[in-house]
Amino acid sequence: MSESYIAVDWGSTNLRAWLYLDGVCIDSVKSEAGVTRLNGQTPQQVFQQIVAPWQQHNVPVVMAGMIGSNAGWLSVPYLACPTRLTDVAHRLTRVEEARPLAAWIVPGLSIAQDDNCNVIRGEETQLIGAYSECPSSLYLMPGTHSKWVRADDSTVLDFRTVMTGELHHLLMTQSLIGVGLTEQQPSPDAFQQGLDLGFADDNIIRCLFETRAAHVLGRLDKSAISDWLSGLLIGNEVSQMQRHYQVAAGDTITLIGSPALTARYEKALQQAGLRWQQLDGDRAFQAGIRSIVNELEY
Amino acid sequence: MSESYIAVDWGSTNLRAWLYLDGVCIDSVKSEAGVTRLNGQTPQQVFQQIVAPWQQHNVPVVMAGMIGSNAGWLSVPYLACPTRLTDVAHRLTRVEEARPLAAWIVPGLSIAQDDNCNVIRGEETQLIGAYSECPSSLYLMPGTHSKWVRADDSTVLDFRTVMTGELHHLLMTQSLIGVGLTEQQPSPDAFQQGLDLGFADDNIIRCLFETRAAHVLGRLDKSAISDWLSGLLIGNEVSQMQRHYQVAAGDTITLIGSPALTARYEKALQQAGLRWQQLDGDRAFQAGIRSIVNELEY
Repeated sequence: MSESYIAVDWGSTNLRAWLYLDGVCIDSVKSEAGVTRLNGQTPQQVFQQIVAPWQQHNVPVVMAGMIGSNAGWLSVPYLACPTRLTDVAHRLTRVEEARPLAAWIVPGLSIAQDDNCNVIRGEETQLIGAYSECPSSLYLMPGTHSKWVRADDSTVLDFRTVMTGELHHLLMTQSLIGVGLTEQQPSPDAFQQGLDLGFADDNIIRCLFETRAAHVLGRLDKSAISDWLSGLLIGNEVSQMQRHYQVAAGDTITLIGSPALTARYEKALQQAGLRWQQLDGDRAFQAGIRSIVNELEY
Repeated sequence: MSESYIAVDWGSTNLRAWLYLDGVCIDSVKSEAGVTRLNGQTPQQVFQQIVAPWQQHNVPVVMAGMIGSNAGWLSVPYLACPTRLTDVAHRLTRVEEARPLAAWIVPGLSIAQDDNCNVIRGEETQLIGAYSECPSSLYLMPGTHSKWVRADDSTVLDFRTVMTGELHHLLMTQSLIGVGLTEQQPSPDAFQQGLDLGFADDNIIRCLFETRAAHVLGRLDKSAISDWLSGLLIGNEVSQMQRHYQVAAGDTITLIGSPALTARYEKALQQAGLRWQQLDGDRAFQAGIRSIVNELEY
């Protein structure tokens, strides 16, 4: 069992890396060189800048996220579900260009069925950690692309993605909804109103326009649109997915993410009459990497 | 009854104007100076450039669209529904700055209820025309913001807006769905597949991500995503609105728009088992302006 390693969370827009020695985080670094923001550098060059200062420790490196996609460093094949989380550590892809460091990329998960096409990259590592810290039959990982994951013990049976976060961003910054607004302010009341509508009305794309009409007609504060829309989209997501996965009132969902975001989902889960346990997203990631390192053979 | 006038359709992104003398279109002009693209000019300046060559005829000018919004020339109050289409002509707002020409802006329609906030600007003129050419109890006007309008004879009882067109554009150009695609090609098969899914599955925001996953996993042609997404969104719109307005199989919907767009909706209406009559959008607009001019007192 190794407690010394480098963990790298390398996504689309950011890269974060941590150096662990004997189970203690000694150093960490953050960069904006996500795989879509390499600014002409190769992943190898970025890797050497970020990780080179830690090279002397000669510890293994485990990387997760979009770095394993066809837009990343190496295209690491997805593991098709159903798959066991405990098997993921044995399916890493070695990155030869990282030498002299011994480095691997964690594979994502996929589903390709007639009624469900889905992919995950990065969240599988959080899932591995959540399985060791807060096991559940249903995991909810809100974010740009919210993931809902059905599991049976360590086996991922199915997962679904809801574009809630990306849609909120697009609608606020690029669509007619965002035109002519004042600076957005926190508004728990507007969030709650949006949540109520998201639960009450399935026809989400019609509701989106009403966001616009409501502030044009003076029925919704121009500074509270972001929170209203957030409530609407999250209410729709939770209500639809509760139905889709037939979540029973007695089930406990493991809710994984940053406290700021999970607080919004907690309100929605409460409104839906569901139970949950909250797990910090960074903690889940670190626990996942630790589990993987413990299985690593090199 | 006057058959000589200037009709102006002045929207967000375009302006079109037609000169009618004794019922015949003598001249027309098209400009990109929509109210969001004035390039530092005032609406008055644009108006004078576009309409000045026709000033000698000394005919009335009727304008419709976003030019009557708070981002336009004059903020023309909405008429609150229920409202009679035949009353709209008596509620025009005179534009003093257009002198020496006699010019008016057509008001939009609004609904501000707890369960429905909605606004229309421009489509009310097409509706007036449709009422004279193809009267119906339900009008469908697809576009950037699709409008579904419930009417009883000439009275508009209710209308709803679905952001289908804007969402398709945003998702293809700004979201992860559009990343890494090849040039899009027409694909009736992909449109039909999307349509099937849009009818079968209410959870539209989850389906959106599956568009992405399906092409990443090679189950959907990278050149057919636009048509697949179009089918998905239109299928969702028609299925949801059919349910919302409880459209019966015997009802005939008046479908108003350009032939390229209405052809897509015709496939969806057919799949839903509904009947319709198609009315060209430009023809509806011209008929609407003609009806308004006939009621004009000046």
